[in-house]
Amino acid sequence: MLINVPETVVPDALRGIAAAHPELTVDVDKQVVVRRDAPVAGKVALVSGGGSGHEPLHSGFVGPGMLDAACAGPVFTSPVPDQMVAAAAAVDSGEGVLFVVKNYTGDVLNFDMAAELAEDEGIRIAKVLVEDDVAVTDSTHTAGRRGTGATLFVEKIAGALADEGAPLERVEAVARRVADSCRSFGVALSPCSTPATGGPMFDLPSGELELGVGIHGEPGRERRSMMTSREIADFAVDAVLAELEPEEPVLALVNGMGGTPLLELYGFCAEVHRVLGERRIPVARTLVGNYVTSLDMAGASVTLCRADEELLRLWDAPVRTPGLRWGA
Amino acid sequence: MLINVPETVVPDALRGIAAAHPELTVDVDKQVVVRRDAPVAGKVALVSGGGSGHEPLHSGFVGPGMLDAACAGPVFTSPVPDQMVAAAAAVDSGEGVLFVVKNYTGDVLNFDMAAELAEDEGIRIAKVLVEDDVAVTDSTHTAGRRGTGATLFVEKIAGALADEGAPLERVEAVARRVADSCRSFGVALSPCSTPATGGPMFDLPSGELELGVGIHGEPGRERRSMMTSREIADFAVDAVLAELEPEEPVLALVNGMGGTPLLELYGFCAEVHRVLGERRIPVARTLVGNYVTSLDMAGASVTLCRADEELLRLWDAPVRTPGLRWGA
Repeated sequence: MLINVPETVVPDALRGIAAAHPELTVDVDKQVVVRRDAPVAGKVALVSGGGSGHEPLHSGFVGPGMLDAACAGPVFTSPVPDQMVAAAAAVDSGEGVLFVVKNYTGDVLNFDMAAELAEDEGIRIAKVLVEDDVAVTDSTHTAGRRGTGATLFVEKIAGALADEGAPLERVEAVARRVADSCRSFGVALSPCSTPATGGPMFDLPSGELELGVGIHGEPGRERRSMMTSREIADFAVDAVLAELEPEEPVLALVNGMGGTPLLELYGFCAEVHRVLGERRIPVARTLVGNYVTSLDMAGASVTLCRADEELLRLWDAPVRTPGLRWGA
Repeated sequence: MLINVPETVVPDALRGIAAAHPELTVDVDKQVVVRRDAPVAGKVALVSGGGSGHEPLHSGFVGPGMLDAACAGPVFTSPVPDQMVAAAAAVDSGEGVLFVVKNYTGDVLNFDMAAELAEDEGIRIAKVLVEDDVAVTDSTHTAGRRGTGATLFVEKIAGALADEGAPLERVEAVARRVADSCRSFGVALSPCSTPATGGPMFDLPSGELELGVGIHGEPGRERRSMMTSREIADFAVDAVLAELEPEEPVLALVNGMGGTPLLELYGFCAEVHRVLGERRIPVARTLVGNYVTSLDMAGASVTLCRADEELLRLWDAPVRTPGLRWGA
């Protein structure tokens, strides 16, 4: 691994973010990344965060048109309420703060506690829970569906509405609408290796894949002998469509887990589009890349988001973050 | 691997590029990716290409402000002259075409032959050779220095000048100036696996690293027991500085080889900035990510580019491609 010692992996990365992105303020000790121009007068602020190891999520999504701040926990472990309160205090302009929370027990508890503490300090807080992974319910770390790729859509689209000056209630409502409009399914072709152990985090024999894996390597629906890209796309897209039933065109995220080359990911994208075409689902926009990752895990996930005209307009709005950038 | 069969990996990926990026025209049979609005009247066109497996280089760099077309070869194998001539013919507005060529024997021969053929068809051609890797001279596939990370700087900066309407001679001159101003050094922490074999392409025992590796896994200067991120940054940056001697601030590319998580890459970026600070080299801009890759190889490279005011202005100019996008 390209690290110094396992104990400093997260602060080392935060120092690198500070070095590469002068438009961000990074509190390396507190592990909080904030837009340098925060608080932005008259704007609702968005704060997210979670365990590290999923980069660019969340710190790479801080900037105009997306998050105002992100809190980084240890690898695959929730940040603590103190970080979330500090982030909220740093970005609140008086218009309130939306917490974007992935559905893992630790994250949910800590953001709940942080919301109470922040409200005690006079900051208005709203919360949206992201729970899009259709693979399993009630898996390791989670009651209900896990929060995965939909987080990117929620942060991007709600961030765009906040940028337009919408009040907290409307930003919260659109965030919830996006969360309700997204479903995801992922596969692992190899386990990921955590800095702490230096070795594979879970056991997945070469030549097998985990259908429905979580972004921390949590077990999915079943393990099978290696399938082709075509077969995986059929399985993943149909799993998503079984719970989504789009009536509008969809936004599609073809997401790499970190260790899958872009060459393979684009090939998978072709198969995802093929299945969607066969199921008569029009695709309005497609994003391909490593956005919601699991360290060096090989594999991919598909997230579909039903997008009416408002969501599509907000998706297309300018965004300027290290990990997602267009139109500005 | 997330593929169908090894034989269709490149065309499958090209179908995915076509599906995800309607602003590009993809000839899947010919393996050429072109800006949909090409030829752009009054503009010099840029064409590059090379073996596949280095994505987003080159097809991910096609778009306004960068390349007009890219030719994709088989994995780690040069495209053929026919592709390059077809690309040049598709994008030439009459102002001429600049070929951006990485210094590998096959690429050089094929682009030379393509230049002759294109000129026979009445297309003015200029060429720039990218040869930035300081690790070794005359390695596998290459006489002289290998072409690696500098390619991104050449394509971005010359593409920006072409966008301003500069004539072919000036675009060629700035491309050469960028190529002369860039040097790189890379390390491998694991071998990459090619679709054809499904297994490691070269032997690199766990716990060892290759200092000075090429982007096809070519041997570097030496193999050592695993080093820390800090030690690798010292070695890589000093190797680059030994042949660059910047008098201006530098643009820094902290590039992942494909399989190294962004969390580790940002930690490495912090160490690269630390060394540069110790050597009193100011850094004007830093780009961190997987841009010039070697399939799923773990590792990283550092490219530094001496940037005077003109190069910095052109670097900052708008670019809109799948792999690099800002300001537009």
